[in-house]
Amino acid sequence: MKNILDVEIPTYIEGVGTLTAFDGRVYDEKTHEKEGLKDYRIKKSKIVRDLEEAIRRSGLTDGMTISFHHHFRNGDYIVNTVMEVIAKMGFKKLTIAASSLTDIHTPMIEHIKNGTIYRIETSGIRGELANAISNGLMEVPVLFRSHGGRAYSIASGELTIDVAFLGVASSDIYGNANGFSREGNNDSACGSLGYAMVDALYAKQVILLTNNIVPFPNTPCAIPQTNVDYIVEVEAIGDPKGIASGATRYSTNPRELLIAQNAIRVIEASGYFEDGFSFQTGTGGAALAVTRFLRDKMIKKNIKASFALGGITGQIVKLHEEGLIKKLLDVQSFDLGAIESIQKNPFHQQVDAHYYAGPGTEGSTVDQLDVVVLSALEVDVNYNVNVLTGSDGVIRGAIGGHQDTAAGARLCIVVAPLIRGRIPTILDRVNTIVTPGSTVDVLVTDHGTAVNPLRIDLIENLKGAGISVFTIEELKEKAEKIVGKPNAIRYNDKIVGIVSYRDGSVIDLIRKVSR
Amino acid sequence: MKNILDVEIPTYIEGVGTLTAFDGRVYDEKTHEKEGLKDYRIKKSKIVRDLEEAIRRSGLTDGMTISFHHHFRNGDYIVNTVMEVIAKMGFKKLTIAASSLTDIHTPMIEHIKNGTIYRIETSGIRGELANAISNGLMEVPVLFRSHGGRAYSIASGELTIDVAFLGVASSDIYGNANGFSREGNNDSACGSLGYAMVDALYAKQVILLTNNIVPFPNTPCAIPQTNVDYIVEVEAIGDPKGIASGATRYSTNPRELLIAQNAIRVIEASGYFEDGFSFQTGTGGAALAVTRFLRDKMIKKNIKASFALGGITGQIVKLHEEGLIKKLLDVQSFDLGAIESIQKNPFHQQVDAHYYAGPGTEGSTVDQLDVVVLSALEVDVNYNVNVLTGSDGVIRGAIGGHQDTAAGARLCIVVAPLIRGRIPTILDRVNTIVTPGSTVDVLVTDHGTAVNPLRIDLIENLKGAGISVFTIEELKEKAEKIVGKPNAIRYNDKIVGIVSYRDGSVIDLIRKVSR
Repeated sequence: MKNILDVEIPTYIEGVGTLTAFDGRVYDEKTHEKEGLKDYRIKKSKIVRDLEEAIRRSGLTDGMTISFHHHFRNGDYIVNTVMEVIAKMGFKKLTIAASSLTDIHTPMIEHIKNGTIYRIETSGIRGELANAISNGLMEVPVLFRSHGGRAYSIASGELTIDVAFLGVASSDIYGNANGFSREGNNDSACGSLGYAMVDALYAKQVILLTNNIVPFPNTPCAIPQTNVDYIVEVEAIGDPKGIASGATRYSTNPRELLIAQNAIRVIEASGYFEDGFSFQTGTGGAALAVTRFLRDKMIKKNIKASFALGGITGQIVKLHEEGLIKKLLDVQSFDLGAIESIQKNPFHQQVDAHYYAGPGTEGSTVDQLDVVVLSALEVDVNYNVNVLTGSDGVIRGAIGGHQDTAAGARLCIVVAPLIRGRIPTILDRVNTIVTPGSTVDVLVTDHGTAVNPLRIDLIENLKGAGISVFTIEELKEKAEKIVGKPNAIRYNDKIVGIVSYRDGSVIDLIRKVSR
Repeated sequence: MKNILDVEIPTYIEGVGTLTAFDGRVYDEKTHEKEGLKDYRIKKSKIVRDLEEAIRRSGLTDGMTISFHHHFRNGDYIVNTVMEVIAKMGFKKLTIAASSLTDIHTPMIEHIKNGTIYRIETSGIRGELANAISNGLMEVPVLFRSHGGRAYSIASGELTIDVAFLGVASSDIYGNANGFSREGNNDSACGSLGYAMVDALYAKQVILLTNNIVPFPNTPCAIPQTNVDYIVEVEAIGDPKGIASGATRYSTNPRELLIAQNAIRVIEASGYFEDGFSFQTGTGGAALAVTRFLRDKMIKKNIKASFALGGITGQIVKLHEEGLIKKLLDVQSFDLGAIESIQKNPFHQQVDAHYYAGPGTEGSTVDQLDVVVLSALEVDVNYNVNVLTGSDGVIRGAIGGHQDTAAGARLCIVVAPLIRGRIPTILDRVNTIVTPGSTVDVLVTDHGTAVNPLRIDLIENLKGAGISVFTIEELKEKAEKIVGKPNAIRYNDKIVGIVSYRDGSVIDLIRKVSR
C-alpha cells in the first residue's frame, strides 16, 4: 500500500506486525471522525456548554457507574447538582461510587426512590440518607470500602468507573485542576484532591465542574489535563462554610484531654517515639489534643518526625512550619490551616488515596507509618473496632482510612471514652466490625489503657514506663459497673450494608434495624 | 459461608455479585502467599540484593519488552549495565523500548548479534549502533516513534512494557524517585524524568536503579512509590559529564545568529507574539540564539509568556526567573541551569511525555502551544522535514518531539542553514520524512524565509511587516546555484527502520544504504 506521501509500505513486517499507512489526517476518538492535522484558528478547549452536554458526550447509559469525591464535605454542591440533571435526563439504575457521602446528600433519597440510583459504594454515609438506608430504603445493600480499599478496587479494575464527576476549585481550559486557585476566586478551596485524583486517573470519562477557569497552564496541579475529558463551568461548586471549618479549636473537654494525655504516654513509652518517626492523627477532640501534646514532647526530647500522613489539620501544619515534621503527605485537608499551607509549603504535598492507603502489591504510605491514633464508636474484647454504625445500629459514620492505617502502622492506638452517653464503648462484640482486632494494638480510654495481648513487646514497654496496663475485659467491667450492660440492638434480616475489608473481602454486614 | 470473625456471609447478593469472606490474612500478589495482616518488626522495603535478583523477581522471560529512558543522555550507564546482566542470565529475543539511544550504547551491537535483542523501538539512534543498524545489523527494522507517539502507544496499550529499568538520581526505600537528590550525592542529577514517568505508570514491572537511597518520603517526586516494584542500589547510574552539559554557551556563529534574527522577525510579525503567548525552542546554536533574541523583544514590547515547553535550557530558566515566562513545563532538562532550576523554582515543573506531547483523545500541551522553533537536517519543497537520517542516508538523529510540536503549535518554524557542508538543505524530496509538511508553517534560513502556501494568513502578516517571503522553490534554486544538485543516495531494498507518525501510522521507511 502507499501512504498519502506516496511512500510504498508493506502491509506486514515479520517481527513488527501489521502496518497502517499515514493518511495526513488525524482520527478523533471522541467524534470518530478524521480531521486535518492542524487547526490554526483556535486553541483546543475541553469546556462544554453545560452539564447536560458533558453527560451526553460522556456516553453515559443506564446501569453505568458514576463517581464523586467528598473533598467539599458538607458544603458539596456537586453530587446534588449532577444527580438532578442526570435524573431529569432520565437515566436509571446507576451505581454511585462516592469516596464518601454526608448530610448534604439527602436529595439522593428521591433519586433512589425514582430508580435513578440502584446501588451505592462509599466510605460512609451520614444524616437522613443514612437513616433511610438503615431503614431499608435500597433494594441492593450499600457497599462500604475504606479509602485505601476503594483506591485498590479502582486501580485493580474490580470497580470500573464509567464517568467521574469531579468538582475542582480551579481548572484551565484543558483540565489541569486543583483544590484551590492561584488566580481569581479562591473561596471554594478544599486543599488536597487526594480522593479525586484516583478517579481522574482511572475513570473512563472524567468531567470536571468548576466555578473558576484560570489561565493555562494551571500547574503544578492535582489532576493533570491528560486525565480529563470535559469541563463544565458552574456558578458554585460548594458552600465555603461547609467545605472548610475555620481554625481548629483546642479541646477544653477534660475527658478528651485525659484520653490524649494517656495516648501520649503510650506513644512515648512504645519504643516508636524516636527521631525520624512518623504519625497520623485525625480530627476529633482527643486526636487534635494528641497532636498538641505530641508537639510538647517532641520539643522537649528534641525529636523530629519524618512525615505526618492522612487528613492534615492546621495543628499538624504548625508543627511542620516549626520544623518538627519534615514532610506532610496530605490526602485530605481538614481545615483552613491545612488548605492555606498546601498552597504555599513546598513539602506539604497532596497525595492520592492509592498512594496514601492502597493495599495493592506495590504498597502505600501506611506501610511506612509508625504511629496512628484512631477514634472508635465501639471496641470489643477482641479489639475489633466499629466506626460505622451507632449504638442504635443505624449507619452514621465512615470507614475512612481506619482499616488501612491500622493495618499499616507499627503502632495503632484507638482512643475512645470508656462510656459515651451512658453507653459503654467496650462490648463483647461490636455491632459492626470495621477494623479487625488483629491490626489494633492499644485501646486508650479516660479510665485506663489496654494492650492487645498479641503485642507482648508493647505490654512490656508500657509497664516498664510505669503505665498501668489493663486487660480489655477489665476496662469493660469498669464501664459496666457504672452504667450496666447495654441492651442488644434488634435487627431485621434484611442486609442494608456490606462492610468490605481493604482487600475487597467481606468483614461484616449491616442489617436493617427493627423498630 | 462464615468469615474468620464468625460472620455469616451470603456467597452472592443480587446487584452486588459474588462475595468473598475476610480470612484475617492478606494475599501477597508477588509471592502468591497469604501473610498475617501486620508485621510489626520491620518497615516494608522494595530494595533487593542486586539487579539479577530484581530481574528474576520481575518475571522477565524470553521475547518480552523492556524499557529505558534517556535522561542520562550520553552519560547513561543504565542500558549497558542492565543489558550485560540480562545477556549473562541468558535471555533472548527481547524488544528494547527506549525513549532514545545514543553514542554510549554501542555495546548493544553485541547483544543484537548474540540474540539477546531482537527488536528496538526508540525515538532515535546515534553513533556506531546507528551505523551498524543502517548497514543492516538487525533482522527486524527499528521502529522510530516521536516522544508523544511513544507515550501514546504505551498509554493506549499498543506498546506493552513488561519490565521498565529506570535510573533515578534518588529514591527512598519505597520507590519515591527523582532525577535529582535533596540529600546526599547529587552528582548524577538529570532534572526532569518526563520520559521515565510514562514507563513507571504503565509498565507491568518497574525496577529502579539508583546510587542514592534517601530517607522516606522522597517527596515531592517524579515517580511515586505506587508505580515501583523493586529498587536496586548501584555504584553509579551515569557519568555526570555525559548527563548534563555545563552552562549553555551563546552562539557566535554568524550564520546561526542570522537564522535566529530571521526567525525572530517571523515570530514578531506572525500575529502570535502577544502577551500570554507560549513557545518551545530547542537546543542547537540557532534555537538557543532565538531564545536570547526573543528575550530582548519581550522586554522591549513588555510581552510575557504564559509558558515555555519541552526540553528546558538554562537560557529559558533565565527568562523564567526574570519574570518573562510564567511557567516552565519540563519534559527534559537540557543543561545544568535547567537541572538546578527544577529543584528550586516552584513553577518549573516536570511533566511526563504523555502530558507534553501525547496525541491521544484528551490532548496534550503541544495543543496549547503558540510557537515552536525546530531544526532540520533536510526540508523538501512540500515542507516535509527529515531529522533522522544524514545526507548519506545513515541514521544519525532522533524524532524527539518534532512531529508532536509541529502538529500542535499554531506557528511551526523550521530553522536550517540553506547549505550544510556544500550540500543543499532543501530537496525535491527529503530522504526520510519525519514531520509532514502539512504541519510545518515557515522555513527560515540564512538566505531567506519561505512560508507554507497553506498559510495565506501568515504570508500576509509577514509581507505586511516588510519581510521578503520566498517560495521554497526559490530558496532551493538559490542553494543549487551555489553548490549544485546533490547526488541521490543509493539504497538497498532491505528496510532497516520504520518511521511512525505520532498516531502510530507509517510515514516513511529507512532502507539499508548501498556502499
